[in-house]
Order: sequence, then structure tokens, then C-alpha cells
Amino acid sequence: MVTKPISPRTMGRLPIYYRYLEDLQRLGVERISSDQLAQRIGITGSQLRQDLSAFGQFGHHGLGYHVGPLLERVSELLGLKQPHRLVLVGAGNLGRAVASYAGFARRGVRIGRIFDVDPQLIGTEIAGVPVAPMRDLGAYLASEHIDVGIIATPAASAQETADILVAGGVRAIWNFAPLRLTVPDRVLVEHTHIIDSLLHLSLRLHMQE
Amino acid sequence: MVTKPISPRTMGRLPIYYRYLEDLQRLGVERISSDQLAQRIGITGSQLRQDLSAFGQFGHHGLGYHVGPLLERVSELLGLKQPHRLVLVGAGNLGRAVASYAGFARRGVRIGRIFDVDPQLIGTEIAGVPVAPMRDLGAYLASEHIDVGIIATPAASAQETADILVAGGVRAIWNFAPLRLTVPDRVLVEHTHIIDSLLHLSLRLHMQE
Repeated sequence: MVTKPISPRTMGRLPIYYRYLEDLQRLGVERISSDQLAQRIGITGSQLRQDLSAFGQFGHHGLGYHVGPLLERVSELLGLKQPHRLVLVGAGNLGRAVASYAGFARRGVRIGRIFDVDPQLIGTEIAGVPVAPMRDLGAYLASEHIDVGIIATPAASAQETADILVAGGVRAIWNFAPLRLTVPDRVLVEHTHIIDSLLHLSLRLHMQE
Repeated sequence: MVTKPISPRTMGRLPIYYRYLEDLQRLGVERISSDQLAQRIGITGSQLRQDLSAFGQFGHHGLGYHVGPLLERVSELLGLKQPHRLVLVGAGNLGRAVASYAGFARRGVRIGRIFDVDPQLIGTEIAGVPVAPMRDLGAYLASEHIDVGIIATPAASAQETADILVAGGVRAIWNFAPLRLTVPDRVLVEHTHIIDSLLHLSLRLHMQE
């Protein structure tokens, strides 16, 4: 497959393509017109053609595009084809919600183990994943190859948890705790903070008044 | 207080100011230098002075800015000074995590009631908020003035829930369900989708390889 180099702008649109195409596939739609695709992604027809030529070849302008192969290619570009190995720290409500998230398995995401300090939880399973004591996290990371550590602890334990994850060699931390983490530059941090959405919503409501 | 009209760009930076100033206040910092503030917000000194003059008057360039009053003003501009009244639909793991979120009370956010279909949960309390049967949601909305409905149901019930919330007069929906909702233009929708963060993280890891 001959492809052009992909621009940062096109890269930035990949998650939007992914989610839209996945919705279409779930609804059984096999083809999508270029007009509708461009409109949903929020770009012009000419930008769409540039994106698609960077992805490869997925149908003809007039006939529309094949949803399945296009979704496969976008997944590949997003790095979803190499399964990620994760650990989750924190088995409270948020941790349980993350562990139970149905969309992970389908996307090659596997949480290997959950760690917590609560003796009541240790030895149980959440969504089929065993909960181990927090003190075993370091040894687990030393023996398994883990890409990503998910932090769903209270803010007060988040930095300490990040330090253990970093020492254990994770490449990225996905942080749900409401705290800015300090980690070496080589470690990626993705924040998912409930409060950011609330601030946006409040601002949008306020501006409407 | 004489203020200039606030540009959309400055508006868009308000959540960043808010989170940084709030962190500072929690750490007991009373003053912040203009250089450090500009650097953390990710803008130039001249943009910072423009922002600050739009907010009002909060200290002098040479002496730094007062964290407390500046945070108050940013909160006011974000609409956090008028308390929002919310209902939460869905008392599963994610719903429980949202209801238990400690940052809400501090920010004037009050969840009035939680609704669920599970008879085991009805009549219980989560973080002090009573759980009521889903069939009572419409009547509750008709009798209370609710601004925002939070949807933390499975995807399959999300649209139906949104329809009830819209009919009940909410101005905004905060949607945690992995589904794009169809609502009238007048109703704001804020999406918080775990999967978006995962896609970003996967993309960033992949680009690093």
C-alpha cells in the first residue's frame, strides 16, 4: 500500500474518524458518501480527499468509501492494532468503572491486574481481573512488560503511584486522579479529569445566559 | 469594576487559569509572578496582561498577582458562582464515581437526586444523595428546577434518558455514555468519553515508536 506521509493535522483528526466509523460499523453501515463523511469530520471535501489519500485507497469519490477497511486502517494508524498492556491502580468507584469499561477488549486493551490497598478488595476480581495488594505493584512491573499504568487513586496517593509506575518502566500514565503528576519527559501522561468537562459545561451555560 | 469585553480566546483559557490558580490556592500560595503565570498558562507576557486587564485589576506586573481574588474572578467568569442544580441518571460504577466526586460541593455543584432502574439501589443513598426509581424522573424534573442532567447509563438507555431530560426542561446534558445523543439545538451537550483519552494515548504512544 503506497501512502504519503501523514500530516499532524490529519493525525489529530484520526480519533474523530475512528469514533464515527466505529459508530457506522456498529449500525451495520457498509459505505459512506464522501460528502457525509467530510461533514461529520468537520472538514471540506478537498481536505477529506487529502486525508484519505494519506490513509491509502478506500473507494472512489463518487461511490463513497468502505467503512470496514477504512476503520481498520484508521485503527492501525492510531496504534490500536498492537495490543496495549495495562495495570490499573485504585479499585474505588472510578477504578471499577474503568476496569468494567466494555470498549477496552474490543480495542485490544487488556488490563493485566488491578492494585489497591483495601484488604477487603484484595483477592477479588473486577470484570474478570484480579485485585492484588498495592505493595506487590513494583514486583509485578518488574516481571511483566507493561506499557501503560492507569491511576484511579485519590489525589493524595497519585504521585507516589506514578513514581512506582515510572520506576517499573511504563511508557505512559493515564491519570484519572485530580492532580498534576511530575514524571520524566520520556513518560507520556494523559489526563482524564472529570472537572475539566464540568468547567467547560459551566462556561458554555454561563455564556448562553 | 471596569472591565473590557472578554475575547473568545481569553474565554477559552479560563479553565486553564482556574485549575492552575486552584492548585496554587490549595498549596497556600498567595502571590504568583506574571512570568510564572504566563508560562503555566502557555501564553506570552503581553497576552497575559491583556487577559488580566479583561478580568479586572489583580495586582501589579512587578509585584505579581494575588491568587485568591484572581481565582474568585475566574470562577465568576466561568459561571461557577451560580450554583448548578443537577440530576444524575445511572448508579452503576461510573455513576457512583461521578456522584462521589469530592470536587463538586466545593464548586457549587449539587446533585439533587440519582435515578436508576435497579430495585436493589432504589431507596439507598450514594454520597448522601438518594437513589429514586427511573420512572419518577419525569415527575421530579417537572417539580424541581434542574439545569443539568448527567447521563451515566449504558449506551442502550442513553438516548431515551436524554429525551426525558430534554422534555423535563434541562438546559444541558453531561453525557458519559458512549453514544452520540440527538437533542434540540437549545440543549448543550458535553461529552466525557473515556475512550477519547485512550485513543489520544494510543496515538501518542504509537507516534513515539
